[in-house]
Amino acid sequence: MPNTADKPDTGSAISFVPPSAMTLPRYAGVASFMRAPHLSLDNPVLSEVDIAMLGVPWDGGTTNRPGARHGPRQLRDLSTMIRPKHPVTSQNPFEDRNIADLGDAPVNPADIMDTLESVTGFIAKLKSKGITPLSAGGDHLLSYPILKALASDGPLGMVHFDAHTDLFDSYFNGFKYTHGTPFRRAIEDGYLDPRRVVQIGIRGTMYDGEDVEWGLAQGVRIIRMEEVIDRGIDDVMAEARDIVGHDKTYVSFDIDSVDPAFAPGTGTPEIGGFTSREAQKMIRLLAGLNLVGADLVEVSPPFDPSGGTAWLGISLMYELLCVLAGSNATRNPNRKSG
Amino acid sequence: MPNTADKPDTGSAISFVPPSAMTLPRYAGVASFMRAPHLSLDNPVLSEVDIAMLGVPWDGGTTNRPGARHGPRQLRDLSTMIRPKHPVTSQNPFEDRNIADLGDAPVNPADIMDTLESVTGFIAKLKSKGITPLSAGGDHLLSYPILKALASDGPLGMVHFDAHTDLFDSYFNGFKYTHGTPFRRAIEDGYLDPRRVVQIGIRGTMYDGEDVEWGLAQGVRIIRMEEVIDRGIDDVMAEARDIVGHDKTYVSFDIDSVDPAFAPGTGTPEIGGFTSREAQKMIRLLAGLNLVGADLVEVSPPFDPSGGTAWLGISLMYELLCVLAGSNATRNPNRKSG
Amino acid sequence: MPNTADKPDTGSAISFVPPSAMTLPRYAGVASFMRAPHLSLDNPVLSEVDIAMLGVPWDGGTTNRPGARHGPRQLRDLSTMIRPKHPVTSQNPFEDRNIADLGDAPVNPADIMDTLESVTGFIAKLKSKGITPLSAGGDHLLSYPILKALASDGPLGMVHFDAHTDLFDSYFNGFKYTHGTPFRRAIEDGYLDPRRVVQIGIRGTMYDGEDVEWGLAQGVRIIRMEEVIDRGIDDVMAEARDIVGHDKTYVSFDIDSVDPAFAPGTGTPEIGGFTSREAQKMIRLLAGLNLVGADLVEVSPPFDPSGGTAWLGISLMYELLCVLAGSNATRNPNRKSG
Amino acid sequence: MPNTADKPDTGSAISFVPPSAMTLPRYAGVASFMRAPHLSLDNPVLSEVDIAMLGVPWDGGTTNRPGARHGPRQLRDLSTMIRPKHPVTSQNPFEDRNIADLGDAPVNPADIMDTLESVTGFIAKLKSKGITPLSAGGDHLLSYPILKALASDGPLGMVHFDAHTDLFDSYFNGFKYTHGTPFRRAIEDGYLDPRRVVQIGIRGTMYDGEDVEWGLAQGVRIIRMEEVIDRGIDDVMAEARDIVGHDKTYVSFDIDSVDPAFAPGTGTPEIGGFTSREAQKMIRLLAGLNLVGADLVEVSPPFDPSGGTAWLGISLMYELLCVLAGSNATRNPNRKSG
Amino acid sequence: MPNTADKPDTGSAISFVPPSAMTLPRYAGVASFMRAPHLSLDNPVLSEVDIAMLGVPWDGGTTNRPGARHGPRQLRDLSTMIRPKHPVTSQNPFEDRNIADLGDAPVNPADIMDTLESVTGFIAKLKSKGITPLSAGGDHLLSYPILKALASDGPLGMVHFDAHTDLFDSYFNGFKYTHGTPFRRAIEDGYLDPRRVVQIGIRGTMYDGEDVEWGLAQGVRIIRMEEVIDRGIDDVMAEARDIVGHDKTYVSFDIDSVDPAFAPGTGTPEIGGFTSREAQKMIRLLAGLNLVGADLVEVSPPFDPSGGTAWLGISLMYELLCVLAGSNATRNPNRKSG
Amino acid sequence: MPNTADKPDTGSAISFVPPSAMTLPRYAGVASFMRAPHLSLDNPVLSEVDIAMLGVPWDGGTTNRPGARHGPRQLRDLSTMIRPKHPVTSQNPFEDRNIADLGDAPVNPADIMDTLESVTGFIAKLKSKGITPLSAGGDHLLSYPILKALASDGPLGMVHFDAHTDLFDSYFNGFKYTHGTPFRRAIEDGYLDPRRVVQIGIRGTMYDGEDVEWGLAQGVRIIRMEEVIDRGIDDVMAEARDIVGHDKTYVSFDIDSVDPAFAPGTGTPEIGGFTSREAQKMIRLLAGLNLVGADLVEVSPPFDPSGGTAWLGISLMYELLCVLAGSNATRNPNRKSG
Repeated sequence: MPNTADKPDTGSAISFVPPSAMTLPRYAGVASFMRAPHLSLDNPVLSEVDIAMLGVPWDGGTTNRPGARHGPRQLRDLSTMIRPKHPVTSQNPFEDRNIADLGDAPVNPADIMDTLESVTGFIAKLKSKGITPLSAGGDHLLSYPILKALASDGPLGMVHFDAHTDLFDSYFNGFKYTHGTPFRRAIEDGYLDPRRVVQIGIRGTMYDGEDVEWGLAQGVRIIRMEEVIDRGIDDVMAEARDIVGHDKTYVSFDIDSVDPAFAPGTGTPEIGGFTSREAQKMIRLLAGLNLVGADLVEVSPPFDPSGGTAWLGISLMYELLCVLAGSNATRNPNRKSG
Repeated sequence: MPNTADKPDTGSAISFVPPSAMTLPRYAGVASFMRAPHLSLDNPVLSEVDIAMLGVPWDGGTTNRPGARHGPRQLRDLSTMIRPKHPVTSQNPFEDRNIADLGDAPVNPADIMDTLESVTGFIAKLKSKGITPLSAGGDHLLSYPILKALASDGPLGMVHFDAHTDLFDSYFNGFKYTHGTPFRRAIEDGYLDPRRVVQIGIRGTMYDGEDVEWGLAQGVRIIRMEEVIDRGIDDVMAEARDIVGHDKTYVSFDIDSVDPAFAPGTGTPEIGGFTSREAQKMIRLLAGLNLVGADLVEVSPPFDPSGGTAWLGISLMYELLCVLAGSNATRNPNRKSG
Repeated sequence: MPNTADKPDTGSAISFVPPSAMTLPRYAGVASFMRAPHLSLDNPVLSEVDIAMLGVPWDGGTTNRPGARHGPRQLRDLSTMIRPKHPVTSQNPFEDRNIADLGDAPVNPADIMDTLESVTGFIAKLKSKGITPLSAGGDHLLSYPILKALASDGPLGMVHFDAHTDLFDSYFNGFKYTHGTPFRRAIEDGYLDPRRVVQIGIRGTMYDGEDVEWGLAQGVRIIRMEEVIDRGIDDVMAEARDIVGHDKTYVSFDIDSVDPAFAPGTGTPEIGGFTSREAQKMIRLLAGLNLVGADLVEVSPPFDPSGGTAWLGISLMYELLCVLAGSNATRNPNRKSG
Repeated sequence: MPNTADKPDTGSAISFVPPSAMTLPRYAGVASFMRAPHLSLDNPVLSEVDIAMLGVPWDGGTTNRPGARHGPRQLRDLSTMIRPKHPVTSQNPFEDRNIADLGDAPVNPADIMDTLESVTGFIAKLKSKGITPLSAGGDHLLSYPILKALASDGPLGMVHFDAHTDLFDSYFNGFKYTHGTPFRRAIEDGYLDPRRVVQIGIRGTMYDGEDVEWGLAQGVRIIRMEEVIDRGIDDVMAEARDIVGHDKTYVSFDIDSVDPAFAPGTGTPEIGGFTSREAQKMIRLLAGLNLVGADLVEVSPPFDPSGGTAWLGISLMYELLCVLAGSNATRNPNRKSG
Repeated sequence: MPNTADKPDTGSAISFVPPSAMTLPRYAGVASFMRAPHLSLDNPVLSEVDIAMLGVPWDGGTTNRPGARHGPRQLRDLSTMIRPKHPVTSQNPFEDRNIADLGDAPVNPADIMDTLESVTGFIAKLKSKGITPLSAGGDHLLSYPILKALASDGPLGMVHFDAHTDLFDSYFNGFKYTHGTPFRRAIEDGYLDPRRVVQIGIRGTMYDGEDVEWGLAQGVRIIRMEEVIDRGIDDVMAEARDIVGHDKTYVSFDIDSVDPAFAPGTGTPEIGGFTSREAQKMIRLLAGLNLVGADLVEVSPPFDPSGGTAWLGISLMYELLCVLAGSNATRNPNRKSG
Repeated sequence: MPNTADKPDTGSAISFVPPSAMTLPRYAGVASFMRAPHLSLDNPVLSEVDIAMLGVPWDGGTTNRPGARHGPRQLRDLSTMIRPKHPVTSQNPFEDRNIADLGDAPVNPADIMDTLESVTGFIAKLKSKGITPLSAGGDHLLSYPILKALASDGPLGMVHFDAHTDLFDSYFNGFKYTHGTPFRRAIEDGYLDPRRVVQIGIRGTMYDGEDVEWGLAQGVRIIRMEEVIDRGIDDVMAEARDIVGHDKTYVSFDIDSVDPAFAPGTGTPEIGGFTSREAQKMIRLLAGLNLVGADLVEVSPPFDPSGGTAWLGISLMYELLCVLAGSNATRNPNRKSG
């Protein structure tokens, strides 16, 4: 089911450099992700795009408190306050790479399986064009159809920031596809190589721990929050980099890995989480990995109408964009023409 | 200063029919006004556009509580929940006319006079192409530069819904351009014919009443809220229609004309205002007038983060769109090709 | 799937008279609906129950903005402020009838069809015991499985207060079960007699109007909001009473029939709705009908964390309880022993 | 216990004319009630004061949801948006009378009886100086100590706007002084003449109705909301004026008489209440009575942090101020020198 | 005054194992604390209960900003998201011990001394049955009547987490019982052994410091926040464990010990407080002490309607429950039958 | 333009010791800063004042999200919860020095240059009387007119806490005076000695970095957040003290230097900021410097109606007041008489 709404454009002469806040106020204008040009999937200029930001406005996999379907809208709203240049590295991803907002992936609020298929189809098109996707959720189940599309050549590694393993088998009489099960499905289906999967920040009360046991049995490295606190961010991230190594790797960042003081706008918060400084640092330490895609999920605006969680979320998406841009440039040094 | 951000498109093959909520969920997608195509001023397809919705994200004229600069963003956000067809008349303006979102008019948060000039320039371009503007504020001062552009052929009549006359002379040591002065300036400068101006819903505590006296002296008809309550909406609107007659007329709808229970998100609320049913009815009773433009102003999201005021605002903008579409069709019966 | 959580009790000696706020403060205590005793389905005392209040914490049919699954929790929270006696009729339903809170019906957030079946099963058990259900949603799709259970003896009439007809055929590629389709399904499946169905308060922008056309073709009486305003509540309700007549009738009250100023906490608001005074009056005018059940749906706490909408909702549920108690007493004059 | 904090001034040369918003922005400055001069009880200029506004920041009588103790602070905050002149009568109370803000009456959050005594003492001092008090609550129990002070010469009449009679005997094991009992105490103690007491807007679910029965037995006229709706505001207010007649009368306005859509910020809301237009009109129709004081109570900021309820409250306090100024001028035509 | 409302049950066959979120969604069902069975004081099954959770919905001792009376309701609401098993120790208190929700202790919003007596009576009954209480406030004064009941055999030690010493002598003309005085009263009355009392996290501006001086003179160990930061959590908690030693010890956790960024919902916040990670760690380091009861107080929902503070509060109550369960098991290794 | 509103007093016998919360509840009374006496500029007692707190309710320099004009009102509201004595040093600034609230500086919401001149004039009067100003914003542009007044004898040093350098040249077609440019202007105009300026906490995405380059070229020391994290607060503050040395120094604290989890109420938040503990510590480490004034800016109530940001802000203003009081006492050991 193509997303027929997202067709604001048709042609040529697109500028990939966002307008400056010195001419267009930061709060003004129709809101695309970080003011990147909003293109549709059938735009011929897509062949020039290196990295695509997109939304997956869907929370059909949510077993607890819904609302993440509104995440992409609020993230785009806040994103027009992002400036282009990285404060530490001076990297400007918008100059280095051609970056676009491809709108929202097609979803069906009333049908999980239909949505999974549509999202896989959408991402597969991007992959076929050599575009690296940076997706904004939506609930965490959406990582599953994305991984399905990106792993068509073979299983990926993954650095996964989260309070929860999302390795559960099923909910509610055996239902297999919820926001608590995506990575079990992805490992079972061969989209992830469990020995190249590392989960960071896991915490919170448990049901029976079967999810953790299963993950460990597959070879997943689960780094609980308490271990992160003891060892420090640098040490943990060094291990994470070793685990995923030089092969293709996906990054999934669940906003609930961050403490609810910093990220109240999410459906399943757990106290004792990361600070924003730790979250920034962890993503920056992904630089140099072979990243083929990333997502930031579970921002749920109804639980934070102030937009503070979305501001944190989009600020972290910017950090993800920077490391993705680095990976993309390494893989395709000559692609960006301008 | 052209608004360089708002250039998501370049070309041809634009569909003016918004996507259906039956395929794209109502909360999803990049938010343009009522899902109309988002076009820039230099798009060649502009020659086919009949009615333009646009934002003026600016509150530089606000002497009290700011925030209306965020109005267009929130109005667009809520606007994707609007369906195309009118429930009473069965009119579908999106089928009858070509309607587009032209993005935000260029503004300068730090310079009032620069902004007034930019907005006039933006609207003048629309007028030169025969496009009827439906503007979303922003504070009420923005009606002044719009009227300046639209009245280049001669003074207009105006139906003005508001709690305040906005006929003050000056504030703070003689400052002439604030959201309390636009219509005094517009009358002084000949953009409005005061004998064809009617103000409906005026109420609230007064400074000294000089604004009312001046208006009456010019021939403005000021219908206070108490009079509306006594006479009823039908009677008052019949008089309003008589006052503006068959000549060119502008409609300015200040959201603070509505009671703060219905529209808390505004900077200068006054109790005792219109209900949403009355507001709907009043706008519907403008059908058949010779309307050349309209605005809906003073929605201030910081005072209603829930979006309820914006939902009321965009619902009333839809009603304004319908009456503008009727007027536009009367003036240009053959323009719309599709 | 039985709802195993809701088993706080086991036995005998239940008092059906809620504790007084003169001894237990109104904000205190574990919150059951209006402080009625909280019983489980297998409690032997169920045989003495006349009317059951229950929650259906589920919004799986929501195509727009979710959150109604949290409705029952917030309605119970506010409900402890309800006092027992009706201010106009002096009726005390808690003395006249045995009323209990049966907890929440079993639901599956990840599976629509499983949920529909579970809810039907739950209500069927109540029906088999001669208990009249008063359900709190949850989204409007839940009326469908309730009607399915209650109409096992033949089609029912219905008085339906809503901004929307909920007579759509399908959404998103033909999906048949959403909160926009329950009454089309119920009519198709013979649970409702369309000539004994009246819908009051319909308004808001339309897709294509097919829902209205279909309903009218079946014989449904659709009273648009504008007609209500013109004729007045008394006249409209007299017609509604005539339509449903003396046979078994269900009442479905969608909180979005009320204006968003009074009920902002709902997913699909429409401006121009009922005031709280009108809503009260309409329900009071149902007294004397042969009512076999009722629901109040679409209270969505994330859109009104203040609880104001839930307070309105539970106040209207109290009014529904009073008219249900009257009907129940007429049908079973000797049942209540105490 | 004198309120030692409220001593910002000492002397002479006080201007009783609030500064204009044309020079001092309406949101700026230290917030006294409507920008009246803030004086302490021992200020010699008090002899020139006609009407005193004061706060009673106390909710020790609240049996349900507290927070009204914060009312005066929020009312003062919003009050600086009030302009001086009445829109219908053109009355300017600040020019007609000398009006001051006397700060907050002394209260003790931990001791009800101590507070009742302190408030009576505070008001008695005002009465001894011939000053008419306009008090802002705080919960409704505070009317009791005020009436005690004002009725030292004999029982008063009262026009009482409220959803509740506040004629209960006692709560929680016989506790006599709560916000549900003030007027029973005041009648028992001879501060109110029950045959000159009229209560308007009473509604909401009841405990056992004993409060109403007791009131009726004393001769109190209780006009339920349903009667107001049937007869209309004009008719009801004509009766109210007849009841209190020409003798000394107090006005007590509980914000919960207004519908929660307009006044959500209160501890014991009841649906089906007055609109803001009705509230305004009712107070305006008190003009010409022999009013010796008034209060506006139960604004509870924690239940409406937006300030909308306080804005309604202070707007109604302005209306009360105007009618009090009229009464004061009638009684003391020569007092105001300026 | 028995709390007659909290009698939803009567009998036998109670399951002490909460229902799983895999069958009952976490947000659904009537909310008891962590889904433990809700029992009344006269339930015969009470003899099998090891640990009781209960609410004390009362803030009559609050001298500043009220609202903590609503704490138990909101804590219960959020508590249904707690899962049973501890993430670090794998302890499952619900399997190890019989745990129940005993509803709310009886309180009188209008009478402090009556409430103190009622709460002491309620806790004394639990003590007489050998049940360990875990109480949810309510304001901090409630620790006093609890300590009075628990210390009937002799003074207790206490680990006290708080921003304030609560060792003040009196407020407002000598009033002795407020939320600033409980531990001074408890020491004076011999319920606490001051040499076995340690206060952790004290900070914020001071009146005159007499509270601190008095405490130090009695032998109380006061560890200011600055000392905690310098020494670290481990070192401070080791000292705290030494101070209370092996004898009976109570734990009182004031949510305002945590920084307002993490716990905004409280009446007397102080900046510079604990993070949620520090709070978790401190409570975990209480394991192995001889704990006879605990409370978590001062969660004030009106100051955090989002529920974030309550989520932190209930998450910490779960940690307290785990250490209490350990102590209880040590003292009564054979009690739990199931 | 004198601020004619702020004249609540005229004379003598002012007490500079704020009333105790043991007699006046902390939430009660007309709110002046920390309950200091509210004096006007022409009050003769001004000659006894050592330190003045004042508001600058103005955000005319804000290019992004406005609202800081409401900062002084909300800061005063929360400030009445501040107690007089410092918890670590036992310093009581209100006993050591004569401290007053001088109301709000005169501002013009519609004219930037007029406002800059007025504020400079206001501060110049304070300087001429030997009064040290502690100002509450308002947006950061207000530091410029304050520095202009305070630097009349020569350039000052500055310790500047902020997420942004505020060293930009211009915005929007060359506009020179915004909240992003004050310190560039102040350095250009000789009010600041750039070699004695240190900026701490700089972070966030950048436009082009020209602001940083310019600052470094002038000799400004810019300590980015990442450097602070690496080196620690003590080390960084030692360097900062060295940079400003013994000469006259100003302190400017932008609340957005603190992380948005702690300070969401600001217009331009940046993630990864200071904790409240770090902010407290940094200000305490300013003790002993030769401080001639300070400001705390950018608290924007519309973005945090809860008041949490204002509570942090006023708590930090108290810390600033203490270090200013120390400096003032060093310079004028004999001034304070009482």
